[in-house]
Amino acid sequence: MKKYNFFIKISFICFSILSTSFSSYANSVSPAANGIQYPVGLKNWRVISSSFRTDNNTQRVILGNAIAINASQSGKTNPWPNGTILAKLVWKNTEHPQWKAAIVPGEFVHSEIMVRDTKKYKTTQGWGYARWKGEQQTPYGLDESFSQECASCHSHAKDSNYVFTIPASIP
Amino acid sequence: MKKYNFFIKISFICFSILSTSFSSYANSVSPAANGIQYPVGLKNWRVISSSFRTDNNTQRVILGNAIAINASQSGKTNPWPNGTILAKLVWKNTEHPQWKAAIVPGEFVHSEIMVRDTKKYKTTQGWGYARWKGEQQTPYGLDESFSQECASCHSHAKDSNYVFTIPASIP
Repeated sequence: MKKYNFFIKISFICFSILSTSFSSYANSVSPAANGIQYPVGLKNWRVISSSFRTDNNTQRVILGNAIAINASQSGKTNPWPNGTILAKLVWKNTEHPQWKAAIVPGEFVHSEIMVRDTKKYKTTQGWGYARWKGEQQTPYGLDESFSQECASCHSHAKDSNYVFTIPASIP
Repeated sequence: MKKYNFFIKISFICFSILSTSFSSYANSVSPAANGIQYPVGLKNWRVISSSFRTDNNTQRVILGNAIAINASQSGKTNPWPNGTILAKLVWKNTEHPQWKAAIVPGEFVHSEIMVRDTKKYKTTQGWGYARWKGEQQTPYGLDESFSQECASCHSHAKDSNYVFTIPASIP
């Protein structure tokens, strides 16, 4: 009986941890025009890399779901495995008020994801694309043809499985 | 009995999730000269912000432990609550090979943390500092006096509880 009580206690602790992690991110975001849903819990995902764009004055953090993190840590990213989701959180650049040489996140621009499914997304090289704009997280694109726009740009990264993100070294 | 079996199964699932999350980050990093340990699981922490430094050619992602994330999401960061740990992963800037206008993480420079404990770290405004250099994660500082160097720089951010990081908007 003591053993069961122990397991019950552990279960509640685990449930608490998991529910705390996910409950604050209930999915109120509309799906993209191609049907791709905003992943629940995306903002709990681990970091894969970051980047700073001088062409459109933005910076971003790149996160990954568990499959992406495992692939990234084991260097198996060409191709990325089916089930991978990579997510970018993008902000306008702004100067830090107390440290002028630091350029930090300002206005939130959009979140965007790439979902790896070689069967489902055959016409876009095995990747499903979605983007949600601004603080309101409004789906980008009037109809599902927007994916071709994404795929066209990502063709520049053909040699790295159509992914621009290079996992950062995190020792 | 069925109920207990259910809890036992759930416990194992939870244990698996938690152990997978943490086992890959066993703590092999030496503590800083002031005794501060590299937090186990740091690389699993959630994102608070990012920044790009033009003065020393680096970029960084700022992560937080659960206390920091809760404070950040509820806007209660002045002061940050006791128990907060903020972590920075810092890289040298490098040009993306396929997209010249994207500046991405190159060589890993260091990881550094700020630990909030108003009693323990009274002499450094309630913050304990530590830094681990390079891929080898070698503790920074010959003796514990290095903390004064950190605190001195952070005095520029006195109005924001000695913290430069401004949590980014993540809708």
